[in-house]
Amino acid sequence: MTNAADEFHFTLSATDGAARTGLVHTPRGQIRTPAFMPVGTAGTVKAMYASQVRETGADIVLGNVYHLMLRPGAERVARLGGLHRFMNWPHPILTDSGGFQVMSLAKLRKLDEKGVTFQSHVDGSRHVLTPERSVEIQGLLGSDIQMQFDECVKLPCSDEEAERAMELSLRWAQRSKEAFGEQPGKALFGIVQGGANPDLRVRSARALVDMDFKGYSIGGLAVGEPQDVMLAMIETVEPHLPKTKPRYLMGVGTPDDIVESVRRGIDMFDCVMPTRAGRHGLAYTRFGKVNLRNARHADDPRPLDPDSSCPAARDYSRAYLHHLVKAGEILGMMLLTWVNLAYYQDLMAGLRAAIAEGRLAGHIAETKELWTKGDLPPL
Amino acid sequence: MTNAADEFHFTLSATDGAARTGLVHTPRGQIRTPAFMPVGTAGTVKAMYASQVRETGADIVLGNVYHLMLRPGAERVARLGGLHRFMNWPHPILTDSGGFQVMSLAKLRKLDEKGVTFQSHVDGSRHVLTPERSVEIQGLLGSDIQMQFDECVKLPCSDEEAERAMELSLRWAQRSKEAFGEQPGKALFGIVQGGANPDLRVRSARALVDMDFKGYSIGGLAVGEPQDVMLAMIETVEPHLPKTKPRYLMGVGTPDDIVESVRRGIDMFDCVMPTRAGRHGLAYTRFGKVNLRNARHADDPRPLDPDSSCPAARDYSRAYLHHLVKAGEILGMMLLTWVNLAYYQDLMAGLRAAIAEGRLAGHIAETKELWTKGDLPPL
Repeated sequence: MTNAADEFHFTLSATDGAARTGLVHTPRGQIRTPAFMPVGTAGTVKAMYASQVRETGADIVLGNVYHLMLRPGAERVARLGGLHRFMNWPHPILTDSGGFQVMSLAKLRKLDEKGVTFQSHVDGSRHVLTPERSVEIQGLLGSDIQMQFDECVKLPCSDEEAERAMELSLRWAQRSKEAFGEQPGKALFGIVQGGANPDLRVRSARALVDMDFKGYSIGGLAVGEPQDVMLAMIETVEPHLPKTKPRYLMGVGTPDDIVESVRRGIDMFDCVMPTRAGRHGLAYTRFGKVNLRNARHADDPRPLDPDSSCPAARDYSRAYLHHLVKAGEILGMMLLTWVNLAYYQDLMAGLRAAIAEGRLAGHIAETKELWTKGDLPPL
Repeated sequence: MTNAADEFHFTLSATDGAARTGLVHTPRGQIRTPAFMPVGTAGTVKAMYASQVRETGADIVLGNVYHLMLRPGAERVARLGGLHRFMNWPHPILTDSGGFQVMSLAKLRKLDEKGVTFQSHVDGSRHVLTPERSVEIQGLLGSDIQMQFDECVKLPCSDEEAERAMELSLRWAQRSKEAFGEQPGKALFGIVQGGANPDLRVRSARALVDMDFKGYSIGGLAVGEPQDVMLAMIETVEPHLPKTKPRYLMGVGTPDDIVESVRRGIDMFDCVMPTRAGRHGLAYTRFGKVNLRNARHADDPRPLDPDSSCPAARDYSRAYLHHLVKAGEILGMMLLTWVNLAYYQDLMAGLRAAIAEGRLAGHIAETKELWTKGDLPPL
């Protein structure tokens, strides 16, 4: 028994060219799109309290099936009441299928039609991931937006290899969908594959749309190819995706990747970049990237950005941040992760407002001009 | 031009046996005693926002001269407006003199009458610490409560060695006091040394009291000796210290060390234990120590202590904390450091209330009974 309000659905509120702004509705809350989803790999957005992640403006976070199935284990998370309760994040959660990371992190992996057999990078234990098991794990975690199991090839790769993996991913899409069944309030997304080959990408998108998913991901991009290849693939795929469903570009990306993808009709993003960079002394601000390791900051009393929405960017001197980073202090990682996630959310809020007001092109031009101008000159 | 309110002073509000409760008054705020001072070694209480440290109930934090002089440098901190502004902590700060850590951390150190010459453990650079330079550095940092430069010997040691170091520390006390001069609103404490020899301890205390410091530290304890030796030294020294000045037991300690020292008339404490333990998976609660690495917690949905004042102890399951610790997640360090600092502050608040109400012995007995009973049984 569910009514329409409990159903997972997407409402479009405005468009500007190919760009869109709207809301993904889930029983756990709405996701304002275009949305950036901070990555909470192992049940934590690293170096952040969950409440802080929320306060930056995040409507949803991502969890990784590969990491969580190995530690603490999906059945354990389920017994403990699901991932939302486990990590004190009552808002929507999206999970990947584990397919990408099993190929990049696991040892001794073996892939066949059935799925992937691999050894844990944590303790060497043997595991099997199939479309059915991936969907089962995502259900045990309680994920609101789940991904089909897929095979993601590294770029560049041959057309034959891209086609084989794309076709396998389509068969796995069908099996994932059958395993998922009907789950009111939750969604399973299909994942468009096909490497850097436009024909393969179109075939993949059409076949997935025929299966009728609640949303569509574009996978296998931002895996080493130049940005123009990635953007060309988005432009190729986008016309084949229904306007009424959200589109998620997996694992992307830099602020520039994001604005260019939003311009081309993408609604959802995730990337470790803001969190990982924050742990390595790199800040993202309106002025572009700022490397706090640089000695130029050692005596600089100015904050990173006095007009930021984020206390970490306003209330601490660059000199202090530099000191913390150089000394390897945990607080440095905490503050810069916070700065970066706040900047990414501010970036998305700016894009949403610009689309709603039909001024996206100008807004992107202004945003890029500030990046190009670069950080404040030294004192 | 200062009035009495701007002067550093101590007011005693109640005693219970040798135990005391009162207020240390500084222009930056009052310190409720007995007080525990979290250690902010290098300008940060590790893994905590300064505002959080305050919210646990801390009135004062400690900074380390040795670490701060090497990185970022005392002159630099002064140019940036002092340590309070640097680390966003507007409340009182106490600094050590660098004497203890130069002997435990620095390389190629050479000690003579003048002071200590040593190589930085950070970059191998050569530095000199003397009583005069230590006081100068503490002034550059803007410290509210400063320590004389002293030599702290490791226990056990010969009486000859303890006496030599104690006598040297007395000469350095005099030089520190002359270098400090008159600084309204700020205090310099003398440090009682003398190893585990009662006669030396008494001689040290009397000589320092003759010099008339604004407070007295007891140094050279909790350096490897059994607890009964430490408590005996406190009992030996305490009658020779003026009732009207605060007494600070340096580097102590475990919760048990603290309650037994409070019982014997100590007013101030600092220790890395709650912060360091928190980074290594160990929690302090009303039930004693809880090792979150232990597999017994892996499936335990209960919080560490549902009645704690600290959200980290109330709002996260032991299973989640166990997972974070096992996975080496920064959030695990953040949450357990928070739990521990909150527990230490709650412990001090309980001791203060018990002294004020003349029921310290009973309160300590109840506190210890809970520790002895130990943590909750497994589910």
